[in-house]
Amino acid sequence: MKSFLIILILLTGISYSSFAQKEIKYTEASALHITGKLKENAPGFHRLDTAAYPALPPGVKHLLTNAAGIAVTFTTSSTTIWAKWCVSKSKTNENMTAIANKGLDLYVKRDGKWQFAGVGRPSGQCSNYQITKNMEGGTKEFLLYLPLYDELNKLEIGIEEGSELHAGAEPFKKRILIYGSSIVQGASASRPGMAYPARLSRRTGLHFINFGLSGSAKMEKPVADVVAELDADAYILDCVPNSSPEEITERTAYLVRSIRARHPKAPIIIIQSIIREISFIDKQWTSRMKLQNENMRKQYELLQKQGVKDLYFIDAKGLIGDDHEGTTDGTHPNDLGFDRMLQKIEPQIKAILSKYGIV
Amino acid sequence: MKSFLIILILLTGISYSSFAQKEIKYTEASALHITGKLKENAPGFHRLDTAAYPALPPGVKHLLTNAAGIAVTFTTSSTTIWAKWCVSKSKTNENMTAIANKGLDLYVKRDGKWQFAGVGRPSGQCSNYQITKNMEGGTKEFLLYLPLYDELNKLEIGIEEGSELHAGAEPFKKRILIYGSSIVQGASASRPGMAYPARLSRRTGLHFINFGLSGSAKMEKPVADVVAELDADAYILDCVPNSSPEEITERTAYLVRSIRARHPKAPIIIIQSIIREISFIDKQWTSRMKLQNENMRKQYELLQKQGVKDLYFIDAKGLIGDDHEGTTDGTHPNDLGFDRMLQKIEPQIKAILSKYGIV
Repeated sequence: MKSFLIILILLTGISYSSFAQKEIKYTEASALHITGKLKENAPGFHRLDTAAYPALPPGVKHLLTNAAGIAVTFTTSSTTIWAKWCVSKSKTNENMTAIANKGLDLYVKRDGKWQFAGVGRPSGQCSNYQITKNMEGGTKEFLLYLPLYDELNKLEIGIEEGSELHAGAEPFKKRILIYGSSIVQGASASRPGMAYPARLSRRTGLHFINFGLSGSAKMEKPVADVVAELDADAYILDCVPNSSPEEITERTAYLVRSIRARHPKAPIIIIQSIIREISFIDKQWTSRMKLQNENMRKQYELLQKQGVKDLYFIDAKGLIGDDHEGTTDGTHPNDLGFDRMLQKIEPQIKAILSKYGIV
Repeated sequence: MKSFLIILILLTGISYSSFAQKEIKYTEASALHITGKLKENAPGFHRLDTAAYPALPPGVKHLLTNAAGIAVTFTTSSTTIWAKWCVSKSKTNENMTAIANKGLDLYVKRDGKWQFAGVGRPSGQCSNYQITKNMEGGTKEFLLYLPLYDELNKLEIGIEEGSELHAGAEPFKKRILIYGSSIVQGASASRPGMAYPARLSRRTGLHFINFGLSGSAKMEKPVADVVAELDADAYILDCVPNSSPEEITERTAYLVRSIRARHPKAPIIIIQSIIREISFIDKQWTSRMKLQNENMRKQYELLQKQGVKDLYFIDAKGLIGDDHEGTTDGTHPNDLGFDRMLQKIEPQIKAILSKYGIV
């Protein structure tokens, strides 16, 4: 067959590559480098081994099975990358793309930077998709982000027969934990790597760890205990959106003091909630939103007055712009809103971290 | 029951409004003002009466049943807006939110500007959803964008019993037709009103009409004849992404000359294709993409040389930024990519239109 094709090519001038679809061989992602978990010992692509934390609310446990912020790194000279993966039966959220909710997002290292290379489009529970093709030859480093809003039950990476696949290095330095709402988890980024902790990581080289809990970042005591237990160089609290004004007043001190008790010198950065677009329209939201942010500011000031050191505060003002176009649904930033948010918070976060030698 | 509630309220201080959920009454959207069709006589929420154009390719006919760019305007003093709507059985595209694909996107006029007010989240084929609530009283003007990527078979607007609903005025001036690809149709904007023709309309007050044909803007003769037949003050051609380099060379002149023949003085603006992110990764795309854009530039220069007047050209350079984060899937701009595109093309388009007294 091969010699027939070569003759055909010589006769017609058609390039060999259009016939020679190489076989694809698949490797379990567990053989590669996995990064972004809250704790290394979390099973599979879960963020935490929730069985070890029976006091966590059931909803929080469930969300910690979502692979938000988890990524796989590998190196290969294959010019094509495939993936096979399986997620749960859950429906895609109406305010997210299936790519973000249940799909994959690949980056390749170029000139020292992670550059977008392709997505894995999900179809049903199990998918098999060619993420990229016709790449240049030579060994390349890859970073593959996993689904933001689903449990990933299986992942295999496919490369061309004849190429090798190896675990990649850890792509990011240090650990900055971001505890927060759906906005941290990644709603409504267009693809997994556009969640704001992931973008911060690629932009700074520091590792911003995704502890986003859609609708459930309410600073409950058992959750605060987990946040405090996790080792990190800095802690960002972006949990205002999910906590009622009363919960903010009642629960913030316990969360901050628990972190401080376990990590005497780590900076703790509180971020006010982005101003939800619906709060400009829905009068009940106008007052709730204002109270949430005011109460968080009061808690910050009180804790400072009480002598809690290394505590910082980022104001909500203008976080997602002022043209009212920065959300997908009135609540969750779209990629434009996230980009505006990064322009505001990244310099502030870096300035704080640099005081501690973290940047 | 009511007197019991009033006593309860007096005793407990709970506000009456939390009990008094007013009845919602629905009105067919056909009784309101519908805008954004290619021709007024298009049936329902189709963009064109394709039965009148038998020569159109079947794929193009189908896409013209999608409600991309169509919007309904109305006024009401209701403080709550609901919608009931039905779309087709088709699956939501993996690179779009269901809100953009099959949902609704509402804006309210404030200080002379259209401000985002809420979305209609679809669920299944027929949905009933409260788009916004607790708004301030008084008569307000609304603009509701329809699904970008689906046929809309039914739409009713719901307001509180006791309020009135009236057709709104035409919100935009003039007509600038944009013929183009999926990017014009709106992939991958996060909600219907974030498609770039819609954003241009809200930002400028001019009416940019959506003739986006996902995957099918190939300048076929029967399509070119329709573009030329449609009355507009200006014509924007953003069809490079769907046309092969050869089709661009073969078909551009016919399209431009057909428009010119019917509209001797209307400016015609050609936009090069945004540089697809996958073209930085996939070598086949690198050369195809380059050739598409080069061939379109050559056609523009040739037509100019041949004496076609009032013909303009917008270069692709930097249209969606240079950080490689401006797409959802490597091909379709996300809201960040669209925003960057607008920053580049809007001043150029306005400068051209101002020469003709259109701005």
